[in-house]
Formats: sequence, C-alpha cells, structure tokens
Amino acid sequence: MRYELYYWPSIQGRGEFVRLALEEGGADYVDVARAPGRGMGMAALAKFIEGRRVPRPAFAPPYLKAGRLVIGQTANILLYLGPRLGLVPKREADRLWAHQLQLTIADFLTEAHDTHHPIGGGLYYEEQKREAARRADDFLRNRLAKFLGYFERVLERGGGSYLLGRRLSYVDLSLFQTVAGLRYAFPRAMARRRARFPRTMALHERVAARPRIAAYLASARRIPFNEHGIFRHYPELDR
Amino acid sequence: MRYELYYWPSIQGRGEFVRLALEEGGADYVDVARAPGRGMGMAALAKFIEGRRVPRPAFAPPYLKAGRLVIGQTANILLYLGPRLGLVPKREADRLWAHQLQLTIADFLTEAHDTHHPIGGGLYYEEQKREAARRADDFLRNRLAKFLGYFERVLERGGGSYLLGRRLSYVDLSLFQTVAGLRYAFPRAMARRRARFPRTMALHERVAARPRIAAYLASARRIPFNEHGIFRHYPELDR
Repeated sequence: MRYELYYWPSIQGRGEFVRLALEEGGADYVDVARAPGRGMGMAALAKFIEGRRVPRPAFAPPYLKAGRLVIGQTANILLYLGPRLGLVPKREADRLWAHQLQLTIADFLTEAHDTHHPIGGGLYYEEQKREAARRADDFLRNRLAKFLGYFERVLERGGGSYLLGRRLSYVDLSLFQTVAGLRYAFPRAMARRRARFPRTMALHERVAARPRIAAYLASARRIPFNEHGIFRHYPELDR
Repeated sequence: MRYELYYWPSIQGRGEFVRLALEEGGADYVDVARAPGRGMGMAALAKFIEGRRVPRPAFAPPYLKAGRLVIGQTANILLYLGPRLGLVPKREADRLWAHQLQLTIADFLTEAHDTHHPIGGGLYYEEQKREAARRADDFLRNRLAKFLGYFERVLERGGGSYLLGRRLSYVDLSLFQTVAGLRYAFPRAMARRRARFPRTMALHERVAARPRIAAYLASARRIPFNEHGIFRHYPELDR
C-alpha cells in the first residue's frame, strides 16, 4: 500500500505528526503537495480540498489517502496508521490509552498555536500582537508546565523509556515533535524549565536518535520550522 | 456493565457529549459526581482526579470507567462507547469517518469556548472581556459559518437524515448538543443564520425528538446551560 499524504508543502504543522509516523514506520508514502510530477504538487492538494465530489469531505488538511479510504484529522490518521505501521500495541486498552494521549497532545498544540493567534486564525499576528502577548504569558506561566508535567507523570508511572512503557509508539513521535516545536518557539522559557521535566526531555533525545527519525530530520524532507506553522518564534512572546 | 462517568456535576461541558450517548444507548450508568450515596459525589470525582496510584492518569475530566478500563478524552470515550451502544456502524471506514467528524466537533467546541476565554482558562471572563469581544466577533463572522457549513455539506452529501446517512450515530448527538449550545450562547447570531443551514437545524430537531433524548432533556439529569460551561450567554458577545 502506498499512502498519500495531503498537507501544506511549506510547513511542518499538523501534517508533521503524520510524516513522523510514516517515516518511523518505514511506510511507502508520497507527500503529495511536495512531490514532483504529474498529479502531484500544490495543484493536487488544492484540487483535493475543493473536490466537490468527495462523498466524505474533510474539514482541513492533513488527510491521508489509503487505497479507497480518505482519512482526516491528525489523531484519527494516527489511530488508523498506528497498528498498520507497528507503532502501537495490539490490545484495545493500549490503543485507547495511546489515542487518549494523542488527543491531549492535540489540545496542547492548539494552545501553543493560539499564543500567536488568540483572536483569529484568519488575521495576521501583527493584528493581534497585544492579545498574543497576554495569551503567551498565560501559556508559559500556567499551561506549559501543566501539560509537560502531565506527560512527565505518564512517563514516570509507565516505568519505561516511552509513554506506553518499553516500546516506542506513535505518541512518542508526537511528543518529540511537540517538544521540538516548543524549543523552537520558546527557547528561553524551555531552557529555564527543562530540568523540571527530565523524562520528557530524555524522550525527545531518544526519539531524535532513532535511525529512521535521525535520517529524516537530516533530510530535505524535513521542512525547517518557520513563522507560518503551529510553532513560531516571536522573541517578544518568549519570556 | 455499569459505566461510571466522572465529570463536573454542575455543568454540561464536555461530559454532556458522553451523557447523551449513554442516554440514547440506554446504558446502565452512574454520573458519579452527581449521584447520592457512599463513594459518590464530588468527593469521589476529586479523589479520582488526584489519585496518585492511577497508572494511566487522564489530563482532565471527563473520564469513563468501564470495568477495569479508565478512558479519558471525550472523543476517545465515544470511540469506545459507539460500537458498544450501537451508535456507530460496524465497518472500520465508517467508524473512522464518525470519529473524524467527532474530532472536528471537538475543534469547533474549543473555538466556541475561547470566544469567552481567549486569553486563559484560569482567568475570569471579566479579566478578558475586551479580547473576548474581538474573538467572538471573529468567531461569528468567520468560524461559525465555516463549521456549520461543513456539517451542512456532510449531511447533504451523505444523502440521509443523519451525518452518516440513514442511521443515527453518536456524532449526531454531538452535533445536536453543539447547535443547542450555540443557540444558548448566541441566540441572535444563530437566529439570523439558521436558514443557511437547514439540514443541520433539522438534525437538531430530529435528535431532540428521539424518545430517549426527549425524556433525558425533560429530566433533572439534564443540567441547564449556565455561565460556567463551554457555551455561555454573554449578550455583549452575541452580535
């Protein structure tokens, strides 16, 4: 099965959580909007988004095409891919737990994003700078430690090197990406807090060092962080 | 199996999406924080939240206890309950599609909530009134129609009376609750827009008229909307 990922070609964004799973799982996949050739590129993504004949339209990218299935919502895509790529245990209880953690990461991402867009995604950052300063302050003061503390606790109680215990799952890839993004967006705030979350920081390093992930991060397939995605570095928000 | 729902006793909030599924599914359940008797009530919820021995702690209520399983995250609870309560079809493709819609509703809810709390959930509305006015304006101007238009399109393309087609699923209950909440919070804005989303509004009525849901809505088990939940009626935000 060759998976087709439909996502914006110039940002990591939410698509990156799918890319990381596909890479670690050694999947055969094409990142449609970034691929050269006929039927690929941004036009293919646009055509797909606007497709009026899609019986089950998605609200927003990313979508994954898997044969005749078209799956939207990042956490839902990972729910589907997890077992197929060997990135989640077989037991239903474990899969629900992995998915629960993934949904908590999704909430964390929304809050991280809204530090620079507290008023509206359709407005520029410059149009909501004052509100962004307040929201980022609240995020760094209250929410960051609440979320990171939660994952730290999960790692502690799980008793292994990964969130689900001894074996890596797709949720570890997502937590890696979240920490990487937070470090990019808030280098000062994260440097000051890293000693409080040793297990989470060690997980980040452990994932980064996995051969397939390391190869991916060093490749041109990994889009650098920039000021168009979820995580944006605005020094004035990083206190 | 007697399900135990752990959620705040004084608001509909995210727990309401689970309550509606349990009610429509005719499940044997107890709403722990609202129930009288030993081991019930707010103390039971608090004990559960703080439980230091829980191996797989949840980030926030609601949680569902199902035998030895403890499941967190609203959409995840519905993913689990759906098949058990006959509220989702059997095919994997249909279940993924239902879950995708549920996650889109979750995004919608977050945005609806943030109209009154754009800066931080730990602050009072009164501390962020100015920002709330801007965010609510953007929500009503841009986001509301984008989300409602999406579900309208899904209903149209599905060709039935419900989101998945001919049979009710838990996602219909969730869309019902979302529309009910939006009408409570933004009666003027919703009245002005209702003609644009006829299928969605008809779905709301259809769900409300189902015998089990109608009985639930008329009972003391249904907590009234108030200014502590996701949907709050602040007339100054309803333009």
